[in-house]
Amino acid sequence: MADRTDAPFRTIVLDHTLPLDSGRTLAGVEVAYETYGELAEDRSNAILIFHALTGDQFVAGTHPQTGKPGWWERMVGPGRPIDTNRYHVICANVIGSCMGSTGPASAGEDGAPFAMQFPVITIRDMVRAQVALLDALGIQQLHAVVGGSMGGMQALSFAANWPERTARVLAIATTARHSAQNIAFHEVGRQAIMADPAWNGGDYYNGAAPDKGLAVARMAAHITYLSEAGLTEKFGRRLQDRDAKSFGFDADFQVESYLRYQGLSFTDRFDANSYLYITRAMDYFDLAEEAGGLLADAFAGAGDTRFCLVSFDTDWLYTTADMREIVHALNAVAAPVSFVELSAPYGHDSFLLDVPALDRVVEGFIG
Amino acid sequence: MADRTDAPFRTIVLDHTLPLDSGRTLAGVEVAYETYGELAEDRSNAILIFHALTGDQFVAGTHPQTGKPGWWERMVGPGRPIDTNRYHVICANVIGSCMGSTGPASAGEDGAPFAMQFPVITIRDMVRAQVALLDALGIQQLHAVVGGSMGGMQALSFAANWPERTARVLAIATTARHSAQNIAFHEVGRQAIMADPAWNGGDYYNGAAPDKGLAVARMAAHITYLSEAGLTEKFGRRLQDRDAKSFGFDADFQVESYLRYQGLSFTDRFDANSYLYITRAMDYFDLAEEAGGLLADAFAGAGDTRFCLVSFDTDWLYTTADMREIVHALNAVAAPVSFVELSAPYGHDSFLLDVPALDRVVEGFIG
Repeated sequence: MADRTDAPFRTIVLDHTLPLDSGRTLAGVEVAYETYGELAEDRSNAILIFHALTGDQFVAGTHPQTGKPGWWERMVGPGRPIDTNRYHVICANVIGSCMGSTGPASAGEDGAPFAMQFPVITIRDMVRAQVALLDALGIQQLHAVVGGSMGGMQALSFAANWPERTARVLAIATTARHSAQNIAFHEVGRQAIMADPAWNGGDYYNGAAPDKGLAVARMAAHITYLSEAGLTEKFGRRLQDRDAKSFGFDADFQVESYLRYQGLSFTDRFDANSYLYITRAMDYFDLAEEAGGLLADAFAGAGDTRFCLVSFDTDWLYTTADMREIVHALNAVAAPVSFVELSAPYGHDSFLLDVPALDRVVEGFIG
Repeated sequence: MADRTDAPFRTIVLDHTLPLDSGRTLAGVEVAYETYGELAEDRSNAILIFHALTGDQFVAGTHPQTGKPGWWERMVGPGRPIDTNRYHVICANVIGSCMGSTGPASAGEDGAPFAMQFPVITIRDMVRAQVALLDALGIQQLHAVVGGSMGGMQALSFAANWPERTARVLAIATTARHSAQNIAFHEVGRQAIMADPAWNGGDYYNGAAPDKGLAVARMAAHITYLSEAGLTEKFGRRLQDRDAKSFGFDADFQVESYLRYQGLSFTDRFDANSYLYITRAMDYFDLAEEAGGLLADAFAGAGDTRFCLVSFDTDWLYTTADMREIVHALNAVAAPVSFVELSAPYGHDSFLLDVPALDRVVEGFIG
């Protein structure tokens, strides 16, 4: 590995070729990461936090490109539930993404962007790259792995495949398997991107990006992150900057204006091909299948690891029922697990928002 | 009016200019319709059935373009719950649509297609055109109006605005108001269409239509028509014509293949601009707002009309809670109303599918 202090993101380059679930390999993999808090001399206080689909490594510090605060500053920082005065927090950009880790926009062997020549990766591949990062950092065992949504999938994959490397697993608002409905929503997004002529089979890095398709993909996904009741409370049928309907196709309703903004602003910070690859990885995710069909078998080696699972009552993307299946599998292997369904109005996005009960659960579990 | 026996669809041309909720008007409106069963001499046995967003007038007879059976043949026909041996069933294509009634693809005054010069219409405007059809047919009072989904919105609008013209109102799987989430899904579809360069501001009738955008819109909407459990039962994570994941972006999963087919085949039979206009009409629909804010006031004149409302337990587009609000409003004006929530696994689409309990409710109410 080599530190890349000249890069806009802090990265290491893995010193070995990364094997992938597809059977392909990736050489010269870069992993971009951030750390917060001091690593103890005995290296026992490290916590690895996994980010969600469109997230990044800036969990508790300002994003250098957007200038926005870290995406989980309410949870991670000095005196926060994951207290960086006590813990050394590591957060890495997943491979396939576009915030410094190797992804479809990275240069392949011929020096040109991989684009669709990038190998299709899995959630386990993402975790494998982060385990390699831990190796490079000389961290053998973590105090905890933590993640929500796709971050939770990584936490579960870590527990299933590298159980000896963490003492605790905290998985929030996630699932052990993408359902048909989950896949369907992602497929709409991918088709929206691929329908954009600017996508051009993935080769757009020298020209205009497929922003319109990516914006539509983001809009469709965004609806699944919010609860119906939350949308009603936040927007209802209120009009945007007008007293009466326009009888036209402008964004009459606030919810239309909000969605358009979400779609548009997303294209400033995200690569469309990364969106294709990461959604594909999520759709491929099925921990039970990886273990031969039985979810409990996935956790066969996790007997000493402590688990904490949290769902939200208004999350219809990854439901309490989805998470109960994980609990039952952990019960079947007698792994110590605590599970709580929290009440919060924000739907799937609750794990990122102001839910004091979540803070208490996280603080209690991390210890 | 004039019969257009040379047209591919059976239509009449209204002999008066149609006023619209926007304040605009439409002259020379064509209304395409079909009838099934004989009209009694006293004209007392007519039933008007309203179709849904992408539906048409071929409720109980083969569609002349697709060659497919009528969309509700299981419910409407000789010996069926809506028995055409006893009743004269009328079903008209809504204005704004593309199956013979005046819509954005129709010629405007200059002879060119209206395209986006077509006025934005409302659900009430659709019903107004069908009341004009009844006038033209010399039918003063209906035995019943019947509709599911957007058809149910029309049935409720008919009851609110022309209560004296029907003895019965049967509204299935519908709502009195589009919610923020409903609007959001439609907005994604509209943005997908408008993002397609082929849409060209609506002016595509002389060239290639925005099929890719329309297909994405249909895919997004289609997910909302099915239940999560129904999708899981129908598709789960089963692969399409292969034994293992391809580690590519083909339709690996059956649900992806199904959605792509739904999107693609839809573009063969539907006009993208019609999709924009009709979804807009649905999003604008808010019966309470039309009545000044109180839903009960919308039904103030409906005291003698009998209502039957049916919801499905797995319908998350228009929920049982949505329909209960209508029941409460009808109770408030002491209108005779029966309400039933049926259990069916198919989500919103249940109203079109094999749900024997629905047949019994419809047969019992129509009498």
